[in-house]
Amino acid sequence: MELFAVMRSEAFTLWEQAALWSVLGVAVLGLLYAGFLTVEMLRHDTGTDQMRRISRAIRLGANAYLNRQFRAILFLILILAGLLYFTAGEQHIALGRACAFLMGSIFSATVGFIGMNMAVQGNVRVAAASRTSFARALKIAYRTGTITGMLTDGLGLLGGTLIFMIYGEQAYEVLLGFGFGGTLLALFMRVGGGIYTKAADVGADLVGKLEQGMPEDDPRNAATIADNVGDNVGDCAGMAADIFESYEVTIVSAMILGWASFGHKGVIFPLLVRAVGVLSSIVGTYLVRTSEQARAAMHAIHKGYVVSAAVSIIGFCLIGFYYLRFPDQGLLAGWVTLGIDGLDMRPVWTTLVGIALAVAINYLTDYFTAPEKSPVQFVARSTQTGHATTIIAGLAVGYESSVWAILVIAAAVFASCLIYAGTNPTYIAYGVAMCGIGMLTLTGNNISMDVFGPVSDNANGIGEMARLEPKARQTLADLDACGNTTKAITKGIAIGSAVIAAVSLFNAYITDIAKVLQISYADVASMLSISEPMVFIGFLIGGAVPFLFSALTIRAVGRAAFLIVHEVRQQIRDPRIMAGTKDPDYERVVSICTQEAQRELIGPGLLAVLAPLVVGLVLHKEALGGFLAGIILAGQLLAVFMANAGGAWDNAKKFIEDGHYGGKGSEAHKASITGDTVGDPLKDTAGPALNPLIKVMNMVSLLIVPFVIRAESPGGWLWVVVLASVAVLGWAVLQSKRESPAMRKWSAEAVAGQPVEA
Amino acid sequence: MELFAVMRSEAFTLWEQAALWSVLGVAVLGLLYAGFLTVEMLRHDTGTDQMRRISRAIRLGANAYLNRQFRAILFLILILAGLLYFTAGEQHIALGRACAFLMGSIFSATVGFIGMNMAVQGNVRVAAASRTSFARALKIAYRTGTITGMLTDGLGLLGGTLIFMIYGEQAYEVLLGFGFGGTLLALFMRVGGGIYTKAADVGADLVGKLEQGMPEDDPRNAATIADNVGDNVGDCAGMAADIFESYEVTIVSAMILGWASFGHKGVIFPLLVRAVGVLSSIVGTYLVRTSEQARAAMHAIHKGYVVSAAVSIIGFCLIGFYYLRFPDQGLLAGWVTLGIDGLDMRPVWTTLVGIALAVAINYLTDYFTAPEKSPVQFVARSTQTGHATTIIAGLAVGYESSVWAILVIAAAVFASCLIYAGTNPTYIAYGVAMCGIGMLTLTGNNISMDVFGPVSDNANGIGEMARLEPKARQTLADLDACGNTTKAITKGIAIGSAVIAAVSLFNAYITDIAKVLQISYADVASMLSISEPMVFIGFLIGGAVPFLFSALTIRAVGRAAFLIVHEVRQQIRDPRIMAGTKDPDYERVVSICTQEAQRELIGPGLLAVLAPLVVGLVLHKEALGGFLAGIILAGQLLAVFMANAGGAWDNAKKFIEDGHYGGKGSEAHKASITGDTVGDPLKDTAGPALNPLIKVMNMVSLLIVPFVIRAESPGGWLWVVVLASVAVLGWAVLQSKRESPAMRKWSAEAVAGQPVEA
Repeated sequence: MELFAVMRSEAFTLWEQAALWSVLGVAVLGLLYAGFLTVEMLRHDTGTDQMRRISRAIRLGANAYLNRQFRAILFLILILAGLLYFTAGEQHIALGRACAFLMGSIFSATVGFIGMNMAVQGNVRVAAASRTSFARALKIAYRTGTITGMLTDGLGLLGGTLIFMIYGEQAYEVLLGFGFGGTLLALFMRVGGGIYTKAADVGADLVGKLEQGMPEDDPRNAATIADNVGDNVGDCAGMAADIFESYEVTIVSAMILGWASFGHKGVIFPLLVRAVGVLSSIVGTYLVRTSEQARAAMHAIHKGYVVSAAVSIIGFCLIGFYYLRFPDQGLLAGWVTLGIDGLDMRPVWTTLVGIALAVAINYLTDYFTAPEKSPVQFVARSTQTGHATTIIAGLAVGYESSVWAILVIAAAVFASCLIYAGTNPTYIAYGVAMCGIGMLTLTGNNISMDVFGPVSDNANGIGEMARLEPKARQTLADLDACGNTTKAITKGIAIGSAVIAAVSLFNAYITDIAKVLQISYADVASMLSISEPMVFIGFLIGGAVPFLFSALTIRAVGRAAFLIVHEVRQQIRDPRIMAGTKDPDYERVVSICTQEAQRELIGPGLLAVLAPLVVGLVLHKEALGGFLAGIILAGQLLAVFMANAGGAWDNAKKFIEDGHYGGKGSEAHKASITGDTVGDPLKDTAGPALNPLIKVMNMVSLLIVPFVIRAESPGGWLWVVVLASVAVLGWAVLQSKRESPAMRKWSAEAVAGQPVEA
Repeated sequence: MELFAVMRSEAFTLWEQAALWSVLGVAVLGLLYAGFLTVEMLRHDTGTDQMRRISRAIRLGANAYLNRQFRAILFLILILAGLLYFTAGEQHIALGRACAFLMGSIFSATVGFIGMNMAVQGNVRVAAASRTSFARALKIAYRTGTITGMLTDGLGLLGGTLIFMIYGEQAYEVLLGFGFGGTLLALFMRVGGGIYTKAADVGADLVGKLEQGMPEDDPRNAATIADNVGDNVGDCAGMAADIFESYEVTIVSAMILGWASFGHKGVIFPLLVRAVGVLSSIVGTYLVRTSEQARAAMHAIHKGYVVSAAVSIIGFCLIGFYYLRFPDQGLLAGWVTLGIDGLDMRPVWTTLVGIALAVAINYLTDYFTAPEKSPVQFVARSTQTGHATTIIAGLAVGYESSVWAILVIAAAVFASCLIYAGTNPTYIAYGVAMCGIGMLTLTGNNISMDVFGPVSDNANGIGEMARLEPKARQTLADLDACGNTTKAITKGIAIGSAVIAAVSLFNAYITDIAKVLQISYADVASMLSISEPMVFIGFLIGGAVPFLFSALTIRAVGRAAFLIVHEVRQQIRDPRIMAGTKDPDYERVVSICTQEAQRELIGPGLLAVLAPLVVGLVLHKEALGGFLAGIILAGQLLAVFMANAGGAWDNAKKFIEDGHYGGKGSEAHKASITGDTVGDPLKDTAGPALNPLIKVMNMVSLLIVPFVIRAESPGGWLWVVVLASVAVLGWAVLQSKRESPAMRKWSAEAVAGQPVEA
């Protein structure tokens, strides 16, 4: 094959070729395993006609949304691919970069699309299985998630490995294209899906639970189907694309930095580590099962995780022994030199730091959001003094949680500094990147656990709407409760890995500048001193970006929810709907959600791409460096705050619903619903979307920095680009803040004295 | 006088001596004017016996609180003074630094103490005057604020000028001591006062307004007196100490950087500018008056402000012409060289940038918090869909507002870069510092406007409790509404100036390191590159500090409010209190507030002092540099978010109370009260306290950096200091999070099934 010409040249030894082909084989194995699980899942029973009808409504709504979203961003993706093609220097690289960009976005979209479709196929099968067997229901729900997990692992590893095999030492820019495509698409999926799911959820809860006292998923609530669709487009499609992107960007950054520091060995080692992760996820996820008597869902899932982790750690050490010291001399040499001078196990230690970091972040997430721990207890207790103190308590818990999360991340970076003490910053950055590799080793398990959440949530919803028998309902409720716990975990890991990846990419930014200007790394570093006023200005502006982004997305949810509340309230006025003799018009709410989520997509997307461009062109490369640092810091702090404050409110509500402080229907319960509702757009829209945002901006900066440096001796065209970008950016922000005519009309009526009854 | 030996030596020209004595004269003039206004104010009538009784209760509560607070921190202040004395090198400087530290803290305390006492004397006189004359009531309320304003101007200018006159070119460390003392005390006043005022306010509103439907300041509400005491200890004492500290730190940083860049001229110019500001504030504030027919309070206050600004701008330009070019050749030479080559007006332009920045920040604050503008309209509209959407809308508005505020500040720094383009970073930093000087020129007017708020608020409260006649009540309500607008302005300026001052102090940090290590500025700058992993680690940790601090203070308010709600609910069970035949026990609530606010003081104070020490000793000077940058960024973003989200909720509530969306008593109104209550601890406790926090940490870092550098070759003692600091810090944080026994008992009962009725 001509494609692999680079690889078969002198540059790669036979051992290296074998290693790369093995990694590719493992990636394909992961995909085959996903296929196997899909076939297995689809064979299960789909229940009664009514269940199938409900499931079909959810599936149609979800697919209609995704199709519309893909069409909306297709144009932008094609323009960017063209720009990437025409702005690269060499023809060979230009083509590769544009194709890799398309590949990254298609992979990300595919993971989201398939992941979601598996979830909507899985939910009804879980509901059907719950009528006969707890064990089978658990297995279907969990393995539905594993399909997405394996797809993520497989495609992420496949893309990175292929690019390296084809481009060899020229892979740098192509890898950037791959990473950029994946993150950009994930950003769109997160923003669109996040707005959709939370607008539907908030709208459904406000009218259904708070005003009418209906239970969750009551079929009389017109927003019920939209709410279930939202779980799929947000928690499945958006989340899967996002984790794919995290998985992909950590591998891209490790490969880029590995090449810069250690050549081939620095690139192949992280690929081998990832391959071990895929194998251990297959083993661990396969083992997740429980007996009909034990009904121990959480225990089974946890056991699978521990097995995978153990397999991984042993695997890493073996690869370290065998590969890092004597990659060319086969197995035996590795054994012999074990413990002998010159064996460099430092990359292994940094991956283990990554695993430790994942464990620490999981612990913190659990501490700040688990119902029995003191932060949630504090929030729950505050519900007794009303809505306001509930919110205040949640804010305090959220702010505190981001402190500890950032300290843990700082400690991981510090560990990398200690491991590579006395070497140069590039080595340390490689260590940080390997820490990201370690953190996301068990992505297969993480996604299984995460998708398990919305699948069992939806299955429970179908059970409720199809009025299944009590035993099945109990099984579904148990699985749903377990899913609420497991799905909290991935979010913390995703945002933590974003910071780790961004910190390592930041180093690539400096290497990039050094290459373009043909000066030393140290010279570039000294340009980026925080004592430079321009760096500080960029830094202030960068810090503002996550705040602007959050303001836009939160506002979007608030606005869409407002419209849905209006719609549901109007439908509920029909007495036949409340009596249960007529189905509400679910379709209308689904269509409002789709429309509103679409409208908001373009603004944040343009912000992510254009803001670094404007900062770079107007304020130059120093400010752009500060800008990236500011985004990382503010983004991390806000994202963790949002995730954990939201989680704490959510679980405080559940704690009260378990009968404490007066239980369901009490004033305390109402206050806790307010907390949960406020937390929704924070924890499921703005917060998670900050994760791809941080990385998109880093990727864009890496791609444009040669252009930015050339633009420092400005011509007339520069100002044209700047002004056009600013104009588009301004339009996008205003567009995001604009209110729909229906909303304006309604609020004008309200001001004029016709308040909508609450 | 031996004291001024330095000044009379060769170092200062006669012109310089004259300039400095003039500045000192203006400072004293400001203080005399404050004295004159005090005598004038105290001469006014104090109304009926009942009014005097209420006013006395507020005064006693407020003074009891301040006395207790001063006693609590006295010990810490003395220890720090001792440490400052024993860790400085030269005996002469050591004594100066310790004394300046004490002077700074005493000045700050004095401004707070006197400011508050004037307010509690003024409020009853305003209430009494309202019975006969609107014009007189306005004049008394406004001038009560001017007393504090002039005290701030006078003492700030006096301290800085005296230190320079005594120490000349050795003033650096002494000025740092002065700045540190002022900021540290302001931090305590802000934290303690902020917790007090908001605990009382939230507690009073939750039971009074929300549960019982009482109006504000209803005498049957046991928290009423505490609420009014809180307005004084928070909005008067805390605010005054804080603004004093901002005024002082901007002058300190301008003097330090002025000396480093331009020698004498660089120091004397900002002092002269400030003197002009004092004179223009005297003129402008004296002109604030209205006629009995017009009742145009806002117009009069605004007119005074414009006059002051005009006088200042003209004054700055004149000083530029006369002083900057030919300080030694008298007036005529200045005229002659006007416009001639060599006249360096750049420092004047940077002060004008400062005035422009103040105007821009005022505009932004107004835009995001004024009832008629679209952000507050958005929040108000969101109240129709309930508590949760109200909060979501306010969060979105707050996040967005911090974006624009930080962009404006970045633009001001950028303007300084442009004005000093082509020079070195020290000049630019001086430009930034002069921008801070410009921003706070009209501190006299700002404080007058700010104190006017709580004074008229209290007067209105006294009017309500003493059941004054309707005409007087209308006058007081009008003044109160006007005060709500004027008092919002200072907060934005204070936090903006904190960032400006911190950015300029940051430069002093680098100069400091260069001096200790005896290397060039550029070498130090290159150590502080954001590409250095240690800088990045410091940076992450620094960003976490404002979040931790906010979590602790918000939590403290929530906890104290919880206790007050409990107390007020219990008292209200007595039917005689609700019937108005028996006064509630105000004293108990006052004492709960005092106790809780005290308990919370030490934690944040220790955090501010010890965190930089631990970071510096463990992670070294590079990390400490990153740490400062992280604090500035996260602190600014959070502080503006909190101030404006709080302001928007507050005014959305007022908008609804004006009869929109169903007006008082509607569901929308209840939701708006929730928003206002959530905003209270954000905008009046955590947010404003971040302002001194940022600067305290900068000051501490500047003071400890020589010690940190020496500690990089560590001995055993180092780890003793580190471990002790970490232990104290951990204790402080835990102490801040601890719950009182009463609270634990109550919530244990609630969990056991005896929920307190809401």
